This record gives sequence, C-alpha cells and structure tokens, in this order.
Amino acid sequence: MKLLVISWGDFERWRETKYRFGEESSVGPSTLPILQKAIKPDWTVIVLSDTLGRDFSSIEALREDVKSRVMDFLERIGAGREVDVLIVPGIGHFAHGTFKGGAMDTYYYLLHGISQILPPKGDLDVHFDSTHGLNYITLLAYRALKELLGIAAITNKVTFTAYNSDPLVPDITKELTINVIEAGEVKPLPLFEPLPPNTKDYLGNFSLQGEDYGNVLQSLKKLREIRDQRGRLNAWISSVVNGLPLVFTSAFPEMEIVSGAVEELADVYTRAVEVSPGSVERKLSLGRGFGALVKLSFQAKVLEMDRLPKEELSMEELVEISERIFRGRVLASTKTELDRLAKSVKLDTNGWIRYSELLRLLGKNPNSQVDDRNFLAHAGLEANLIEVKREGELYVRYTKENVKYGGAMKEPWKVIETILTRTLEG
Amino acid sequence: MKLLVISWGDFERWRETKYRFGEESSVGPSTLPILQKAIKPDWTVIVLSDTLGRDFSSIEALREDVKSRVMDFLERIGAGREVDVLIVPGIGHFAHGTFKGGAMDTYYYLLHGISQILPPKGDLDVHFDSTHGLNYITLLAYRALKELLGIAAITNKVTFTAYNSDPLVPDITKELTINVIEAGEVKPLPLFEPLPPNTKDYLGNFSLQGEDYGNVLQSLKKLREIRDQRGRLNAWISSVVNGLPLVFTSAFPEMEIVSGAVEELADVYTRAVEVSPGSVERKLSLGRGFGALVKLSFQAKVLEMDRLPKEELSMEELVEISERIFRGRVLASTKTELDRLAKSVKLDTNGWIRYSELLRLLGKNPNSQVDDRNFLAHAGLEANLIEVKREGELYVRYTKENVKYGGAMKEPWKVIETILTRTLEG
Repeated sequence: MKLLVISWGDFERWRETKYRFGEESSVGPSTLPILQKAIKPDWTVIVLSDTLGRDFSSIEALREDVKSRVMDFLERIGAGREVDVLIVPGIGHFAHGTFKGGAMDTYYYLLHGISQILPPKGDLDVHFDSTHGLNYITLLAYRALKELLGIAAITNKVTFTAYNSDPLVPDITKELTINVIEAGEVKPLPLFEPLPPNTKDYLGNFSLQGEDYGNVLQSLKKLREIRDQRGRLNAWISSVVNGLPLVFTSAFPEMEIVSGAVEELADVYTRAVEVSPGSVERKLSLGRGFGALVKLSFQAKVLEMDRLPKEELSMEELVEISERIFRGRVLASTKTELDRLAKSVKLDTNGWIRYSELLRLLGKNPNSQVDDRNFLAHAGLEANLIEVKREGELYVRYTKENVKYGGAMKEPWKVIETILTRTLEG
Repeated sequence: MKLLVISWGDFERWRETKYRFGEESSVGPSTLPILQKAIKPDWTVIVLSDTLGRDFSSIEALREDVKSRVMDFLERIGAGREVDVLIVPGIGHFAHGTFKGGAMDTYYYLLHGISQILPPKGDLDVHFDSTHGLNYITLLAYRALKELLGIAAITNKVTFTAYNSDPLVPDITKELTINVIEAGEVKPLPLFEPLPPNTKDYLGNFSLQGEDYGNVLQSLKKLREIRDQRGRLNAWISSVVNGLPLVFTSAFPEMEIVSGAVEELADVYTRAVEVSPGSVERKLSLGRGFGALVKLSFQAKVLEMDRLPKEELSMEELVEISERIFRGRVLASTKTELDRLAKSVKLDTNGWIRYSELLRLLGKNPNSQVDDRNFLAHAGLEANLIEVKREGELYVRYTKENVKYGGAMKEPWKVIETILTRTLEG
C-alpha cells in the first residue's frame, strides 16, 4: 500500500506558487496535488493542529470545523479526496482563542491516530511531506510515523521517502522544487519498552482537581485489566526482541483487552477537554504508558496469526514462527536451540513430561533451578520450565508446576515475567 | 556531558518576546539565554543554514559571514559563548542569492558535523530545541542527532529532551512557554547498514561534467582503501549487532583509515562548491555511503578500547568485551557459547590447533564445513574457522588456513565476510 502523510499549518493563508516535482509542475497554494499526481498514493493522511478551529461549541465541533474547511480547501485545489484528516491537539494563544494542555499530547495523539490508519499487514510505501507543517507537529508526526513503521517492518517490507520544497520567499519565488530529503528502507525495530506500573503514567493530570483526577484513575476499568497482565505483556514485548518463540505464542496479547484499554484512555482524555468560547483546555494529558500501549496494540496486529495465543506448539510451528519474526543471530540461535531440543527427545514420551525430568531419566544432569542467562540462551526453552510430549511429532509447552528460581519455589510465569521485565529495563 | 543543540533560521529577524521555562523567564529574541540558564549545558551547538550568508567571495567566507553574525547576535542577547556554530548546506532562491545542490547534503553534513562534536565516551544528557529552526533542517538535525545518540548509547547512558515554545502570534503573544515535547532515555541502536560497493554512492554528481566527475571519483585514494576493506568493515558492523566478539576484535576498523576517508570525502565535496556573486552551487553531493562511513567512524570511537584490532584473545577478554557491548538474548547466548568452548578444551594443547581437529581428536564429529547458521549461532566461534590454544588460560583466534564453505575451499575471512554481509542485507 502506498500512503502519503503530510503535515500542514494554517492552509487558508497559503499563497499560490508554482511547484515542480521531477517532470511534473503545478500551480496552487499547496504541494498536495502535485505529490498526489506523481506518487499516486492509495491514501493520504493530512495532519493538522486543532488550534486552527474556530467553533468552540464542543471538541467535536472544533475538529469538525477544521475538517470541513480542509475538505473545502481540497475541493478548491483539486486534490484527491481519499483522505484522512488527523486533527491533533496543539497549544498556544491565538487571536481566535487559547489552547492549553500537555505538550506531549500531540505526539501520543499522533501515534494513536496513525496506528489506526496504517495497515498492519502487507508491504508499505510511505511518503511524508514536511513542507507546510508547524515545526513541532511535523517533528512529532515524523517520529510517531517512523516508530510505527519500524514495528510494521518486523514482517513487512517498508520503504519511506520524505519531501520538503525549496523555501518560499515572498516576491522572489517563481517556482519551488520539491526535494527528496530522506529515502530508504525502514529497518525492523520492535517495541522495546515495558508498560509502566503506575496509572498516572498512562493518563497524567494537567489541570483537574486532585480528587477529580483520583476518580478518573479509579474509573479506568480496562486499564486495570492491562495492569493485572502487565508482567505477561512485558514478557511478550521482550519475546519479540529476544527471540523466544514459546513466550511469543503463549503470552500473545488478547487484542480486545489491549485495544479496549487504548480506546478507554483516548475517550477519557477527550471527555476531559473543556471547550468554551475562545478557550480549549485539555485537563488530562496522555502519557508514556498510553504510547507504549498504542505501540503494543499495533505490534500485536502486525504479528497476529491464526489461533494465538497458543500454549502447546509443535517444533514445526515454533520454527515457522521464528522464521517469520526473528532474524540474524537471534534467529540462528533459536533454530539451533529448537534442533537441539528435537534431537534430545527421540522416543515417544507417553504424554507430557517435564523436560528436566526427562533429561535426568536420560542420565543427564540439568540445572536444578532456572537462571536468567540459561532461560535467554535457550530461547526460553529452559529445562525446568518446559514440558515436552512426543507422539511422532514433538510438542512443547510451559509447565504449570512451580519451579526453583533464586533458591525458592515460584510460579513458572512469575519467573518468566521477572526475567523478561528485567531485559526491558536494561 | 550536557549538550544543548538548537536549530535556527533567520535569527536577525526575530522579535523580542517574553519566554517562560519552568520557573525562569526572560525577554529577548531567542529561547537560547533562558535554555542555557535553566539547563546549564557544558556546550551548545547552533545549527544554521548557509543560505543566510551574504559574502560570496568563497565558501569559507560565506560560512564565516554567518558565523560572525551569529557571534554578534549571541553577544547582543547575552548568551553563553561555549558554542559551536554548525553551518549546513541549504537550498533555495533568495533576494541575496541562489543556493543549489543535493537536498540530502544537509542531512549528511549534519551527521558529520554532529559526529565531530558529540563526545563518544561518557554519559550524555542532550537537549534539543526546535523552536526557531527551518522545518527541514530541524527535522534532519533531529534525525542525525538521534541516530548518533543511538550509537553512543551502546556503551553510554544517554538521555534526550526536546523543546518547542508556544507559537509566536504577532500582536497577540505576551509570553511564550517553552514546552518539553519529548523526554526519555535513548536505547542502544548500533549501525545496521552495509557500506555500499560503488564510489558514486559516497559522492554523487550534482552538476559536474561527466569527465570531471569521473576524475573526482578516481582521485579518492582513501576511499579506495575503504572499498578494499569493505567486506571486513561490513563484518565488523554485523559483529556489533549479532554479538560476535572475536569478529569484533579481529576486524576492528583502523580509525585513521575510516576517519581519513570521511575527511577526504568532506574536503572534495567542499572544494566542489562553486561560489560566485549571488550564487552557490554544490557540484558534488554527499551520499549514503558517506553517511554510513560517518556512523561507522563514530561507532568505532564509541567502542574503541586499548590494543584493538586484536586477533588472539583469551576467554576472559572475550567475556569482558561481550558484557560491555552486547545485551539481552545476544549476550546470554554469547556467554553460553564461550562457556561451552572453555569447558570443551580442558587440557593444555601444546600450541594452536584448529578447533574442529581438536574435536575430532576428542572423538566428536564436528561439521565438515562452515554454514551460515552455525557460524551465527556459535557467536562466530565456529569449529572449522577458529584455532584454540590452552596454556592454563584458553586463547582463541581465526585460522588463516582455507576452510570448506558451500562445497569449496575458501579463505576464512572471505567466508566470514560473505556470511556477515548477508546479515546486513536482510
């Protein structure tokens, strides 16, 4: 899919200019028509600040005002209408009104907005025009977009091209060339941050009364589910980076819970935007936990497969998943570990057996307790933690029995979560 | 070290404004004094476009003109003078002159300029202000800076904070707040791209005659040395990502050759800038090979240690290097491989012996040829490729004898280079 993302400022004030892009040229107030003509995107996303809005009857009305004026403008300049208009929170004092709120809202809002538009499956050819944007919104749109593309690139081919036109100089400019300022393939870059423990890191307080803010935090039911599963979700985040296929499948996030929490936070944030004549105040602010959840949700969509989560897998399935997600050293080491495991269990096992027990029956001497390095080095297939079953094919799963870790008996998933949360904090 | 990097546009036209940052406030045309007061950076870098220059007697005079005007401005606004002024190539047609050249020069020039300023050793606390910059220069400065910081973070703690003030609205603005728009720790992100094979990918042709361009390419003697070592350098780049400690030490780049080639390219590029009254034309353009070399040079400075390159190492040295550079799964797997190797060579060996031969003497059955997966999975310590020597301590080195690979006998480093170049092309 070919996508064009452009960052715009106050579009109604732009002057007519002649733009040139390769062989094409066009006259108008914006680079959009010529970019659409040359790039032929399947879809265009226009990023704009809500500080352009003049209808202060509600936050929806404010956004709708900007959107309808953009649509009129697109009509006027003859641009394609296969467009999403992403109206993001801006701040500042203008002649028509004052906009207050957290300065990082823009980035988190963009991350969420773009993650809803980018298709998680399939190759992506993304074009980004920074010509007309406000400085900080353009910078944050670029950052949000590139981060999501790094996640999409885990399993898809992703290319990225950025454009900027020559600077407009009043009374001097006759023609502006649109220049390519960045071009290349996007490297896979999975999410590599843990979900934070505190609710206030997901939704911060900009200007609510302390008690009201406390009530808001209390009301976040879906976020509570996320916090209950935080260790498991962090283990999953780590499994993608560290090449742990059985953790990947067993701890695969339940999509509805993750997306549900993202939408809950976005809704509560929006409902706390107070709009009155000439004034917008965003009383809550979006935080890094919200950003991590948005990326987690997008990454789960990118890596989603039939029948996940799944706790009992054949060797063949584990190899297939590893080849799809991991690469380089991590993939090579993981496949070597899978081979080694398969070779060590030659005979049918008559049901599930703890792998450490089987090794002892075979006269070997496995570690008596789980240690962090062993767990990672063996691709998560540590002898105390897994059970194996051979019925022709070899199957593997994590045990539900307690295991020894740090000298004490502990629940197996508590052990896995402890080890893997630590890898994200490094 | 605390560093402040700011991107500026046409500073002589800025109006006096009251800026507020946390508890501090100050009146003036720029955010710099208040940022310096609040952040207390050890050093400040100001990024500016050379299109601000008005002295067209030479490229040096053009840059010096901008620089001396910046210095006057700093004096006027009472800013600290612990400053580098980085004057980068811009393009456009202005009342005072026309600036032509490759649109990506700005990014590569910034990458080089910032790499010369950032200290490669020691923790970094970097602050970036995008308030006053031109859109595309700010975006490219942000990108170049973040990429270099990801490399510095391999061994140093690196934090990054970005700022942008409220937008200035003529006749309305009374006070502008400086907002934090990004804050956090920078994750390690080693260079992950190969050096390209073709000279024209290092230095492109913008507007030279074909023959003159050919002569320029011919004249690049230091780049030729790089191209001769390209396979080895790509292997080194891969060793950092894939956790291959003996490749890391054996193929460690010779700093003078890499920096020499970077400086040669930068010099030839600058000498091909044609300056005449009202006109600047950069007849050569910087390319992705130049960018990769700059990052390689910076990464080598970050990871430099006493006595590198080094081809024969003790287990203890390999463990120490691995713990310094690698992390997570890659570190765990590497340490497990080093342990396994150390345990398998128990007795003194009476000199160097190929490890595959030793394994055979011990009654084992190693692979008869090198394969890619084995090489990676064993942290580069593949049995056919390494020689071991135990004299109390265990030492290891790559063999100089030919090894079997893909069914034929090949030079060992050709094999390593082939395998590892492939990991960067994924």
